[in-house]
Amino acid sequence: MFGTYPKETMESKKSTIDLGILVRDLLGRIADKWTLVVIEELGEETLRFSQLQKKIGGISQKVLTQTLRELEKDGLVERLVYPEVPPRVEYRLTKMGYSLGEAVCWIWKWAKKNHEEINRARMKFDQKQKGKTHPKG
Amino acid sequence: MFGTYPKETMESKKSTIDLGILVRDLLGRIADKWTLVVIEELGEETLRFSQLQKKIGGISQKVLTQTLRELEKDGLVERLVYPEVPPRVEYRLTKMGYSLGEAVCWIWKWAKKNHEEINRARMKFDQKQKGKTHPKG
Repeated sequence: MFGTYPKETMESKKSTIDLGILVRDLLGRIADKWTLVVIEELGEETLRFSQLQKKIGGISQKVLTQTLRELEKDGLVERLVYPEVPPRVEYRLTKMGYSLGEAVCWIWKWAKKNHEEINRARMKFDQKQKGKTHPKG
Repeated sequence: MFGTYPKETMESKKSTIDLGILVRDLLGRIADKWTLVVIEELGEETLRFSQLQKKIGGISQKVLTQTLRELEKDGLVERLVYPEVPPRVEYRLTKMGYSLGEAVCWIWKWAKKNHEEINRARMKFDQKQKGKTHPKG
């Protein structure tokens, strides 16, 4: 089901596993507190490390370095070194980085559309749990 | 940027924070090893606990119970109790659960389209790191 799922992915065991790992890896990564913010900021403009750190606010040098290196490693962010003294380094989103930002956007849209219903469901669930056991079916 | 991002979400600080937490929460959850598989299986058909466990394979009773409860709590999965002896309990995806499955599908499509490029980027990055320091820019 999910007509829009790539069907061959669901059918071919081998590629399902590989893609499954990649998808979970990606989802886990962009669920990370900072990765989405970095993608969003670099989606606006190419920035130096210090500019990016300032724009984000509240992120340590160490964590931003790690976040950028993970994104660079996956080819989502490009590190541009200009041969100046001292060398100027800028970070920008690659084409692939942009397209991931767009894909993630669907989750954002979904969350925006459904967050009130989720809150209602959570409250309802909590109320149902009060004074009631929940036997496994 | 990301023209498709809900702009007001990006502009309103308060709702950005709330939605940001929800989105990260959701992404983290569906990045969990089993949640996506449960959504996928229940997307195919309504199932009893034991049927679902058998279909998934390799999931413990405890973990499946937890996974289902989290999904039920968010209103993504519905728990149907039939007044029989012994009571029959079935799980099915709600309308909201289906629509989340569809949104996640965009990430799948993206991964399917880009996983070879990501692999290439990772190999290139690893080679570049060999015998080279990586000064912060």
